[in-house]
Amino acid sequence: MNRMNYVCSVLAMLAITACAAVKPFPGVVPMEKPDLPLSAAMERLYDEWNPHEDRGNELYSNFKYTPLKGFPRTANVSRRDPTKVILVDGVYHVWYTYRHSECPPVGLKKATDTKPGTDWDLADIWHATSKDGFTWKEEGLAVPRPPKPEQGHRSICTPGILVWENRYYLYFQAYNKVGGQVYCPVRVASADSPNGPWKHHPEPVVGPSPEGTWGNIKINDPCPVVHNGRILIYYKGAPIERGDEYVLRMQGVSFSDNPLGPFVASKLNPVINSGHETCMFPWKDGVAALVALDGPEKNTIQWSPDGENFKVMSMIQVPPVAPGPFCPTAFAGDGNGRGFTWGLCHINPDGGGAANESILARFDCDLSLDVDRQIFKKNNLRFNPDTYFQKGVALPEYLKKEILREQKTLDRNSVFKK
Amino acid sequence: MNRMNYVCSVLAMLAITACAAVKPFPGVVPMEKPDLPLSAAMERLYDEWNPHEDRGNELYSNFKYTPLKGFPRTANVSRRDPTKVILVDGVYHVWYTYRHSECPPVGLKKATDTKPGTDWDLADIWHATSKDGFTWKEEGLAVPRPPKPEQGHRSICTPGILVWENRYYLYFQAYNKVGGQVYCPVRVASADSPNGPWKHHPEPVVGPSPEGTWGNIKINDPCPVVHNGRILIYYKGAPIERGDEYVLRMQGVSFSDNPLGPFVASKLNPVINSGHETCMFPWKDGVAALVALDGPEKNTIQWSPDGENFKVMSMIQVPPVAPGPFCPTAFAGDGNGRGFTWGLCHINPDGGGAANESILARFDCDLSLDVDRQIFKKNNLRFNPDTYFQKGVALPEYLKKEILREQKTLDRNSVFKK
Repeated sequence: MNRMNYVCSVLAMLAITACAAVKPFPGVVPMEKPDLPLSAAMERLYDEWNPHEDRGNELYSNFKYTPLKGFPRTANVSRRDPTKVILVDGVYHVWYTYRHSECPPVGLKKATDTKPGTDWDLADIWHATSKDGFTWKEEGLAVPRPPKPEQGHRSICTPGILVWENRYYLYFQAYNKVGGQVYCPVRVASADSPNGPWKHHPEPVVGPSPEGTWGNIKINDPCPVVHNGRILIYYKGAPIERGDEYVLRMQGVSFSDNPLGPFVASKLNPVINSGHETCMFPWKDGVAALVALDGPEKNTIQWSPDGENFKVMSMIQVPPVAPGPFCPTAFAGDGNGRGFTWGLCHINPDGGGAANESILARFDCDLSLDVDRQIFKKNNLRFNPDTYFQKGVALPEYLKKEILREQKTLDRNSVFKK
Repeated sequence: MNRMNYVCSVLAMLAITACAAVKPFPGVVPMEKPDLPLSAAMERLYDEWNPHEDRGNELYSNFKYTPLKGFPRTANVSRRDPTKVILVDGVYHVWYTYRHSECPPVGLKKATDTKPGTDWDLADIWHATSKDGFTWKEEGLAVPRPPKPEQGHRSICTPGILVWENRYYLYFQAYNKVGGQVYCPVRVASADSPNGPWKHHPEPVVGPSPEGTWGNIKINDPCPVVHNGRILIYYKGAPIERGDEYVLRMQGVSFSDNPLGPFVASKLNPVINSGHETCMFPWKDGVAALVALDGPEKNTIQWSPDGENFKVMSMIQVPPVAPGPFCPTAFAGDGNGRGFTWGLCHINPDGGGAANESILARFDCDLSLDVDRQIFKKNNLRFNPDTYFQKGVALPEYLKKEILREQKTLDRNSVFKK
């Protein structure tokens, strides 16, 4: 045995010995998967997550909130569903669903021509500007409901902004009847300037999917981004079957080379199995999504290389509702999505439901490749008692009574049974 | 071609035609994975989740909270880390960390023999009873700190209850010095009755893991369950390296046939890659875990057939902190874990941190095979403005200033760049 062979065999023996002695997992988390017996959870830490966990995950953030100045709260006025924020000549612009009606929402059955059924009924698209993103100036009506009998004459809402070849496009839901299980396609209005004037395109540009399929009646929350040179409009679809049958809130996408369409639905729709209001944004050479509130993958950030096949990248807490981020690369389409650090969202003051007067708020975060703000990478978020005991989170009195009634039977049947 | 062959070939052609015509996903979600092109998200819906989503997922629940009666809030009194609730002769029992000190926690550096460093410093184990789980009677001290120089003479806290062969065991952390990166094993006290008297076992029963490994200094939040006839104690481990180096909050498990040990650590530890306070419970023939607050798999419910290899079963919102469920089958060890419908937890009134006076609260849920309460299967949980603007969730003023300073540079460098 020559010297080299000898050294090699000693090294091999040492390696075998090292493998045979099972050491517990180290205190300092190795960045490479260690050669140790690992539980399923630790395999996932390396294979699905990131050994850096949330702190080293560019697609993890917590969210910190600030009330906005410039949006006075007035009786029967609601502001919600902000678009992405854009910056033009040093001024931030945002659009949103605005309702000012004679009374609060009265529910679908009691709605009239002047009494709104929901918070997003009898609404138009309004516009606000800001120099710093905290203090806003409400500029007023941007896109009014089109006249009867055009689609959308009852209410237009949940706008999404697109900038394409120096022109501005606002996509929005267009209702002829008070919301519920009624036909709702997406229309678009365009302008040469963020200050308008806005011109309605005569026809809806994204319509529901065919009869019997997942989005056959409503297309909610249109969210345009540009990816690989194409316009992608994401949306939440809803079938007429909702209410009677087993349906899920899911998100789909349609593609076009022209902001006025035609838009062609992805053959893989739905592309996200969860989520309520949509929020997609270019991230590196793919598309990321902030998926909130509903479904098995609620409160996650996901990423897709192709805009159609998403993977869960992180789990988030108390995400912004209906977020409209200031996302400078939203429409660049150059395969270098940089993310965002802030945006607007809405809050339903009464803890949710359709009978609210929603308000806009600002969120800050670090979902950006251009900053590194470690405070936003913290998890372990805790809440004060008011959070737990607010309406919708607290146990309601009627349910407490039911539970107390059932408790005795349950206890009798189940205690320490062997 | 005979008739049978003809019929077969027509059927085959129809089948090919049906496959070739790509139909969008149906409105009513099929319970079996359909033979359609599916996005990655829809593949996951069937392969990893459940086409019933949260509503049909026995290991999904939301949580509804109720303030408790019988625990008066007094200056410098803190109650936290409730054990599982047990029912003995028609009375519910719970134990918890109780601190009553001369002042609020002053932080690790300013702590003295009588001034607590943290919320769980200078603490003992107290006991309370209830007839209905909402109104409690504080029975007072159950297990006092052992005398100097015994381990735990500074503080004992975060108890976990075990019932084994008609005897009661309380496991708890035992500190000789004010918390921080100091040695902390788990001790145990036992009694013939839930009303005591409790007798300290002289030696710690679960100690930190070896030098250099993941739990080498502290064993937090012991949580005993019985599975397959063995006692499993779950715990959060912490290495001395925390603070200086890259460590994660993770959970491990140790096994014994005897409540007084010796306990043998799983060779696969850590078995959960996330979570803060531990909460494990028998579920069917395995063990489930409620994983909260920290790590990539924060705010999930997980399940393991063997107690060591866990899988994420659902994603939850605003879970109870440090939950102590009333879990009738916690110690049955018969492979028929039934879960729970309520328990106690704690709330850190100031939104977290170690300088709190925590309070106990009740949560209700449906993580039980014995009830079907659909209200707890809802998601889409929304919050009022106070939730977003509370300390710890709101953007702090100093950070707003930093962000405003950076914003201009960021905007100049990044807007609509192509």
